[in-house]
Amino acid sequence: MIIQKSTAPRISEFDPENFSFGNMFTDHMVICEYEDGKWGEVKLMPYGPLPFTPAMMGVNYGQACFEGMKAYKDKDSQVFIFRPEKNFSRINKSASRLAMPEIPAEVFLEGLKALVDLDRDWIPYGEGNSLYIRPLIFATEEALKARISNKYMFAIVATPAKSYYSAPVSVKISDYYSRAANGGVGFAKAAGNYAASFYPTQLANEEGYEQIIWTDDSTHEYFEESGTMNVFVRINDTIYTPPTSEKILDGVTRDSFIQLANKRGIELKVEPISVKSVIEAHKNGTLKEIWGVGTAVVTTVFKAIGYQGEKLELPQLPLEESFALTLQKDLVDLQTNVAEDPFGWRVLVEKSI
Amino acid sequence: MIIQKSTAPRISEFDPENFSFGNMFTDHMVICEYEDGKWGEVKLMPYGPLPFTPAMMGVNYGQACFEGMKAYKDKDSQVFIFRPEKNFSRINKSASRLAMPEIPAEVFLEGLKALVDLDRDWIPYGEGNSLYIRPLIFATEEALKARISNKYMFAIVATPAKSYYSAPVSVKISDYYSRAANGGVGFAKAAGNYAASFYPTQLANEEGYEQIIWTDDSTHEYFEESGTMNVFVRINDTIYTPPTSEKILDGVTRDSFIQLANKRGIELKVEPISVKSVIEAHKNGTLKEIWGVGTAVVTTVFKAIGYQGEKLELPQLPLEESFALTLQKDLVDLQTNVAEDPFGWRVLVEKSI
Ligand SMILES: Cc1ncc(COP(=O)(O)O)c(C=O)c1O
Ligand SMILES: Cc1ncc(COP(=O)(O)O)c(C=O)c1O
Repeated sequence: MIIQKSTAPRISEFDPENFSFGNMFTDHMVICEYEDGKWGEVKLMPYGPLPFTPAMMGVNYGQACFEGMKAYKDKDSQVFIFRPEKNFSRINKSASRLAMPEIPAEVFLEGLKALVDLDRDWIPYGEGNSLYIRPLIFATEEALKARISNKYMFAIVATPAKSYYSAPVSVKISDYYSRAANGGVGFAKAAGNYAASFYPTQLANEEGYEQIIWTDDSTHEYFEESGTMNVFVRINDTIYTPPTSEKILDGVTRDSFIQLANKRGIELKVEPISVKSVIEAHKNGTLKEIWGVGTAVVTTVFKAIGYQGEKLELPQLPLEESFALTLQKDLVDLQTNVAEDPFGWRVLVEKSI
Repeated sequence: MIIQKSTAPRISEFDPENFSFGNMFTDHMVICEYEDGKWGEVKLMPYGPLPFTPAMMGVNYGQACFEGMKAYKDKDSQVFIFRPEKNFSRINKSASRLAMPEIPAEVFLEGLKALVDLDRDWIPYGEGNSLYIRPLIFATEEALKARISNKYMFAIVATPAKSYYSAPVSVKISDYYSRAANGGVGFAKAAGNYAASFYPTQLANEEGYEQIIWTDDSTHEYFEESGTMNVFVRINDTIYTPPTSEKILDGVTRDSFIQLANKRGIELKVEPISVKSVIEAHKNGTLKEIWGVGTAVVTTVFKAIGYQGEKLELPQLPLEESFALTLQKDLVDLQTNVAEDPFGWRVLVEKSI
């Protein structure tokens, strides 16, 4: 690995008590370039602009995929990342589906640890605080032919992130727009999937909903995901979540919730969730909770679901009664080294640079 | 418009007899940036790299769409572009669906004409030669939150293009992969649509097919497009093409073919084409031609279609008998000022810079 430390670090400008998420970047970034059929050497270098022309294939033909993960600091200033091998294997699944080269494990994992290590002062300590880390791969060849690119860049950038707490939201069950086609790229963290979701989400926002519950594009009868999160439904004391498929992202948080529910002995069924069954459960009073999960906010609890012009209110349960909040706390405590980690999910980032 | 001419033009290195399409760019490019809710001034400047970080939203969340159009030179070195207002309105349809700001007509059309005018020496003269022009819009804000970007770049770059002639190809009717979801972005020239199509196309290539005939993702029973082209089927002496929809790109070449067929009095029906009807027509000998149309190659004739493991051969008709080749010639003659233009499609690019 080539390490080039910043000669003009901005860390002194960073106020962990007062910052906004997502547009302040740590002092360094990881870069690795692919050319002539192979990945080059990993560089850890100052965060900043690189030269690209508008003919860059990544912005023309959309070969671009990414990951989202977090690093946490405990009370002793130890730094941990969470299940990084899951993100590593997922970025390669995304890359393959987009006909992009896979990243070798050492490029991904060593680059990741080196960046988090070197920029550890950028990780805010405290409840819900973390460093949000963005590995991505995109096509960099300059060419105007709709074909597979011959050049790529793998990069990792990072930004301090605040409290995972997010207020309960209202969500609309989609009966027209969809995020994934059968035989499409819904399971991949493909850049284009997000752009495609913004306009339908904006329309839902205008109707008073924060997010969309995406349903299958053929019939709109089955839940897929919610916003950019996997979705869980609790009916009586059983939790349901749809099986992952080529249309559903295999979320790390989803998988962790499933294992944490099992550990607690909460009944959880991985099976298709029909819109009809959710509406019926709401009518007969057995629908207890619906929530979304993902790395960015861990859990977003839903307070209402919109369906065919009606807004159905959901009960708001306190922590002791809520499966969503209980499992969220279990996960956050594990991630931040407040609780034991029987699963071996936490990975310590040693000081070495 | 700000005009900054190149002080190091590369035009002398350009050999119109010997170049490869798509990776040699003309001396200039058009750039216009969007910020604070409005588009800035248009710049015509030397082609080259601009500074972007890997946090650029365009490569993270895929807000990026483009157009493809051509400029032609006639025997008197007059330069023409073809139906530019169609590409202008389509890029704005694509932009809207991706929650991106629309481009004003003057930015698009004046930028386009200025670039083609200034770089007119890059347009090769001769049969099938042209300048391929790529307008695009992509998100440029640096932010790691999956939301609509606040900053965009509109750009136009161009590359000399060779003969539209392409050898007849074999195509595979897709029975698994698809390019568009119901309620998705198939009708938009969204960057992500192309990335999504590469891997399925690669698999088809390995089976001996150059392209895929995309079918509807729910049933795979109806033709949508072929590769990155609209598709036409001739059964006996009637031409069929699917109606445009939210899953099918509204191609300029498709529309031109329809009007040219009407002008010649060839029967043409815009209606859904079922896979079954095509296979049946092949069996009973009434399937005469299948071809794809698009700006890049105008027409690609199909010599075989693959369906469920079988490769069905198609007759190869000479120009006099082929509707595909006859309409292609009509269109190319019109585009290159060899024939009259009763439609008013050709737009002269005056010398003014
Ligand atoms: C579409 C989509 N679904 C689900 C998730 C949740 O995945 P994870 O828990 O791995 O963050 C994400 C990412 O946050 C996502 O983008
Ligand atoms: C998906 C797709 N379909 C069809 C076409 C044909 O459109 P046009 O004739 O406007 O070039 C294109 C662009 O070339 C395309 O990308």
